[in-house]
Amino acid sequence: MKAEIITIGDEILIGQIIDTNSAWMARELGEIGIQIIQISSIADRHSDILKAIELAETRAELILMTGGLGPTKDDITKKALADYFQSNWQVDEEALENVKNIFRRLSRPMIQVNLDQAKVPDNCLTIPNLKGTAPGMWFEKGNHIYISMPGVPHEMMAMIQNFIIPDLKRKRKFPAIFHQTLLTAGIGESFLAEKLSAVEENLPDHIRLAYLPKLSQVRLRLSGYGVNQEEIEKEVSHWSEKIIRLIGDYLVFKGDGTIAQAILLELEELGKTFALAESCTGGFISKEITAIPGSSKTYLGGLVPYSNSLKTKFLGVKESTLENFGAVSEETVVEMVQGLIHGFEVDFGLVSSGIAGPGGGSIAKPVGTVWLAWGSKNEIHTQKLSLGNDRIINIERASIMALYSFYTFLKNQVK
Amino acid sequence: MKAEIITIGDEILIGQIIDTNSAWMARELGEIGIQIIQISSIADRHSDILKAIELAETRAELILMTGGLGPTKDDITKKALADYFQSNWQVDEEALENVKNIFRRLSRPMIQVNLDQAKVPDNCLTIPNLKGTAPGMWFEKGNHIYISMPGVPHEMMAMIQNFIIPDLKRKRKFPAIFHQTLLTAGIGESFLAEKLSAVEENLPDHIRLAYLPKLSQVRLRLSGYGVNQEEIEKEVSHWSEKIIRLIGDYLVFKGDGTIAQAILLELEELGKTFALAESCTGGFISKEITAIPGSSKTYLGGLVPYSNSLKTKFLGVKESTLENFGAVSEETVVEMVQGLIHGFEVDFGLVSSGIAGPGGGSIAKPVGTVWLAWGSKNEIHTQKLSLGNDRIINIERASIMALYSFYTFLKNQVK
Repeated sequence: MKAEIITIGDEILIGQIIDTNSAWMARELGEIGIQIIQISSIADRHSDILKAIELAETRAELILMTGGLGPTKDDITKKALADYFQSNWQVDEEALENVKNIFRRLSRPMIQVNLDQAKVPDNCLTIPNLKGTAPGMWFEKGNHIYISMPGVPHEMMAMIQNFIIPDLKRKRKFPAIFHQTLLTAGIGESFLAEKLSAVEENLPDHIRLAYLPKLSQVRLRLSGYGVNQEEIEKEVSHWSEKIIRLIGDYLVFKGDGTIAQAILLELEELGKTFALAESCTGGFISKEITAIPGSSKTYLGGLVPYSNSLKTKFLGVKESTLENFGAVSEETVVEMVQGLIHGFEVDFGLVSSGIAGPGGGSIAKPVGTVWLAWGSKNEIHTQKLSLGNDRIINIERASIMALYSFYTFLKNQVK
Repeated sequence: MKAEIITIGDEILIGQIIDTNSAWMARELGEIGIQIIQISSIADRHSDILKAIELAETRAELILMTGGLGPTKDDITKKALADYFQSNWQVDEEALENVKNIFRRLSRPMIQVNLDQAKVPDNCLTIPNLKGTAPGMWFEKGNHIYISMPGVPHEMMAMIQNFIIPDLKRKRKFPAIFHQTLLTAGIGESFLAEKLSAVEENLPDHIRLAYLPKLSQVRLRLSGYGVNQEEIEKEVSHWSEKIIRLIGDYLVFKGDGTIAQAILLELEELGKTFALAESCTGGFISKEITAIPGSSKTYLGGLVPYSNSLKTKFLGVKESTLENFGAVSEETVVEMVQGLIHGFEVDFGLVSSGIAGPGGGSIAKPVGTVWLAWGSKNEIHTQKLSLGNDRIINIERASIMALYSFYTFLKNQVK
């Protein structure tokens, strides 16, 4: 099945927001065998919307639209679709109830434009919006399906996952597909590709391997397409095992997870707790950990000791250590992790101290110098990173490297 | 001048990479008054490229293409353009010299495909590539300009900034343009639109107002187009002042900034320090603050007291308070902020405690219940939020609300 995505909204055309929706949709729909053949981003304009739909029809069977809904957009997409399908207007009771519930929960007064969200063309099916007020719309004409969704990412995502994909599966036949994701860290994309070249050359045509690199992590995705579900799963698993053997210790997670998730699983299995002290990463690692439901079972807490006095007061780092070696030093991070384990009464600790930039660098310790330490009461490990000049990237990269090192350490603990 | 961007490459259509190039180009070109009317992402296929160019010609005067160049792409865009403009091939000496220099610098052997990079259609101008091997191409036909660039972001960016924008300015006349961004928080998009409706109705056609909502924040962008730069700046400022008066306290930042930035500016002006204790937001606020260069001047540090024992040990929250009222209560957040200011030796504190979900909720305190507190030794303010069921969104929304409340508090401090 071929599909085209039409994103509607001036904010994309003036470059104020980056269209991340399309890539997400392409991946989700790709999972069930839908191929995106074009993505068109157009203005919030009636005539442009109609023209884009007409052109998309000549290229694709499924047309997915996002954006141009809601009060401030003047519901331009809804009006264009109503014209296109010569609809009359009707109030969708379920959508109206949803709008009312949301305003009730927020204890906010409703105005007419909010109620108007529930008015929809009478010849479409509405798609419930679990995360917001504007319902989605599903039209059909001939062999074509036209779906309109809000542009707000989490609203769109909930519609695709809960309603659109299940409905498409009911209405059309798709090939048997199986995906296996493998998260790797600590190895660059080109080195990984070299390691895997022998396997890649032998992959049959109906099994594809994609590399999805992101700061210090590469996600591998094996996708198999076939007729029989059980067979394709077996075949993909066979190749994924071959790949896992070649990746070795760089494998962090088998499946669609994060390093933070892998760490929490290891800790649960070990029945141990941990804490963080993040100077240069400033809470980034804690944010990654606490994003995961149930993290409080093993993560007891963290400290962001931005000032040196907090390193001394709460982690017991000696003033003489700070004076003699500086806050960004192996000596300091070792004392930080010792003090953290002791003070936070945890089994393991992970700490960072570095110069994220753009200021604060020196010849001896340029911007991008980061010290990490992790361990237990019995053993402490350290690592020095020499990163680049971009503050945001340095923080993120140091966080991922710290998580990866900590994960490797946990994996080697006796269970 | 109207322009269309065509991005060429399967990696965008399968969702493997997010197209960040287009937003960047749209912003850069928008600055000089070029309006992007469509962005089309298409496959690496000869016929698709030709069709996309033909359609773009009917909509835009300037057609910007990225991607489909280089050895691994089989130079598909270059071949399609040569067909379209019925070109012969010639070697561009400057481009050849550039390729040779790059390989010399990397001490890598050159193969034929690398030399082929310098072969270009004989009826285009080449655009030097300062960051890579594939030159850009500039074609003209009638009133249309067609520009092809590599898809690698920093190669494309260097071409746009160093050659394409200066050349366009020489060849065409552009309007005077001025943009003003205003960040608001604490007010929903539809309420903001209602507040601003009177101004919006009176805006002249050459001044446009865009709403860019993101979880609990709305960014407003006024863009004016005119003949005289000074006049249009004056006119945009006039309207922006009108809007600012209507927004009142919901205005957080005048210009392109974040709430975290606004907070740090206020604190610097006040000459005061602050700290964070984030239970349910788990480090998200700290991450937002520390992303900003120089935040260590006023942000001394933070605590993520995920376990109750850390709330007691480091913030002095009484065990009886936790027992009688629970960790998610006004009583607890008040003691947290008191203990934070005292223990971290700061002027101000901001704290959160809540149930981010999906587990941990009860009838009395459902998932999404969050208590915030902020203040100084002399005054403490609290706020209760009732958010939704999504953990990630709850964390982000509570963080933004906390930052907004804290910002409002700081703004009202005597300077």
